[in-house]
Amino acid sequence: MIKTVGYAAQSATAPLGLFSFERREPGAQDVQIEILYCGVCHSDLHTVRNEWKNTTYPVVPGHEIVGRVTKVGNEVKTFQVGDLAGVGCMVDSCRTCPSCREGVEQFCENGSIFTYNSPEKQTGKTTYGGYSNQIVVDENYVLRVSDKLELAGVAPLLCAGITTYSPLRHWQVKKGDKVGIVGLGGLGHMGVKFAHAFGAHTVLFTTSADKKEDALRLGADEVVVSKNEEEMKQHLNSFNFILNTVAAPHNLDAYTELLKRDGIMCLVGVPGTPHPSPSIENLIFKRRQLVGSLIGGIKETQEMLDFCAEHNIVSDIELIPIQKINEAYERMLKSDVKYRFVLDMESLKQEG
Amino acid sequence: MIKTVGYAAQSATAPLGLFSFERREPGAQDVQIEILYCGVCHSDLHTVRNEWKNTTYPVVPGHEIVGRVTKVGNEVKTFQVGDLAGVGCMVDSCRTCPSCREGVEQFCENGSIFTYNSPEKQTGKTTYGGYSNQIVVDENYVLRVSDKLELAGVAPLLCAGITTYSPLRHWQVKKGDKVGIVGLGGLGHMGVKFAHAFGAHTVLFTTSADKKEDALRLGADEVVVSKNEEEMKQHLNSFNFILNTVAAPHNLDAYTELLKRDGIMCLVGVPGTPHPSPSIENLIFKRRQLVGSLIGGIKETQEMLDFCAEHNIVSDIELIPIQKINEAYERMLKSDVKYRFVLDMESLKQEG
Repeated sequence: MIKTVGYAAQSATAPLGLFSFERREPGAQDVQIEILYCGVCHSDLHTVRNEWKNTTYPVVPGHEIVGRVTKVGNEVKTFQVGDLAGVGCMVDSCRTCPSCREGVEQFCENGSIFTYNSPEKQTGKTTYGGYSNQIVVDENYVLRVSDKLELAGVAPLLCAGITTYSPLRHWQVKKGDKVGIVGLGGLGHMGVKFAHAFGAHTVLFTTSADKKEDALRLGADEVVVSKNEEEMKQHLNSFNFILNTVAAPHNLDAYTELLKRDGIMCLVGVPGTPHPSPSIENLIFKRRQLVGSLIGGIKETQEMLDFCAEHNIVSDIELIPIQKINEAYERMLKSDVKYRFVLDMESLKQEG
Repeated sequence: MIKTVGYAAQSATAPLGLFSFERREPGAQDVQIEILYCGVCHSDLHTVRNEWKNTTYPVVPGHEIVGRVTKVGNEVKTFQVGDLAGVGCMVDSCRTCPSCREGVEQFCENGSIFTYNSPEKQTGKTTYGGYSNQIVVDENYVLRVSDKLELAGVAPLLCAGITTYSPLRHWQVKKGDKVGIVGLGGLGHMGVKFAHAFGAHTVLFTTSADKKEDALRLGADEVVVSKNEEEMKQHLNSFNFILNTVAAPHNLDAYTELLKRDGIMCLVGVPGTPHPSPSIENLIFKRRQLVGSLIGGIKETQEMLDFCAEHNIVSDIELIPIQKINEAYERMLKSDVKYRFVLDMESLKQEG
């Protein structure tokens, strides 16, 4: 077994703190990775605080992982010691169901194995995530990472990146489309970057007028303050696609009515309490679609990383030492981050 | 002007009664049709009782019209005197917007002219529908009707038929798909017939166990009583497409969770009060889609009528004289009709 250190929460009310544990020795198909950076996702916070009522403690969160390969099993073909590598939300899946066979393992019909808080296939123990100094993952669930990009900014691509890239690709957003991104947080700012990179006329919806300048810098062509009804009305029936990254309950109709006939609004956030019931008229009278999307498959995540390397896209981040993680959670709750915290795992070496 | 008789409501609380009015003389592109049968749609009742708060009185309902051409304008190319003809929910639209140009006039961006209770383009007066002995319509909005089918059963195809045919075609339901139809009324029974005709494994969802035998006769492969949770659970994650014809507010999640990954539920009924807010998890975790659909365009309506002629499909109807229309409305509210009332316009000749 491999001695590992990380940060864990021991209960829903405890702060994260230093935690020593063991990972499995890499098997024939496994890759061992020294974690250099790990992004901080809202899901980490939800899980730590047991807001989804499914947390097994202790929990080591983190599923936006980049690092360097330190060991490979003897059947590993894609990675060599010294390579950069990434790990996202999944570390395994059944590999045999239709979804796995089609390369959309996030929809594994027997249940994907998530990077943390999931039953590990090889050991039966609970998976521990990227708030730690190393990880061991089957090579089929490890991503190749380009050395052309600023590595810390790559980490959030593994969740925030693929979560926004996948629906924009799946529903074929293309040059000339008018695309809305609702919310400018960790997900939304990546949505703006991708929609812009795909050639869409990109409109950012935000409740905060003071985010305008930054949204334009990130690639938005227009910024609409969603509280301003007059401003919203100017966009009625005009969008091909709206990517709604806001998980907080809100009035969906204000956005569905901005879609053209056959337009699509995709939700990627699960609200803690339901949204007000959406208008069915809004759907019927323009044949509009309300859809959901969940991260992306391994193949598409690799495609996204390659696209980012080619187009020089990374997440805008604030790099912090792991000792600041509890403070970072409080700041995330106030949306006080532009636009993703990333843990610098060098800081873990100071511990113990 | 052409003297016309029909049945109208003079207010939201008045029963329908005999009403004499005038229609325009057919212009160069118009077709004059003697109405032989007219289906009775729930929309008629909603409009008569001003439940959508937009009724202009007197109102002559009816948009499931079949009859025989009695006169044509001198530029009319498609119809001759003596031909069978049909008129559905629309009698005109702007013809220039993108939706009209693409043949989906039901989504006309300048507003379709509906068969009743709409401002008539040619006269500026309110359109009067098919509960009458004749109608004058621009030939571009008149459908050709085969003489191979039982004519009274064709009438409901003009609304109930196209409303169910269009989404099944638009979302490409095909042989081997598993398709659910929710509700066995005027729309639902047509949905069953079409899904079956398209080669889908067709499952009818109903709250009434006593509809089982009839649903099987109409073409369903299976019938599920939706109140039976155990029976519902056996169909989790298995449907490609569900056509939900129920307008009454109900729990949509009970159906979205029956969809496969990438499955689609299409709503065609506008609830009077909102459905309980649907689960966004149900959409996100299987990339499912909640969509709406509205009747169909003229071209697709013709395609549907031709398909019905080829496959010998008509609506199951109860033929009634127009004098029974008020009683029929009461029975519709109790779902006491298999599956559509159709007015025999011969009965109108007894009047006056």
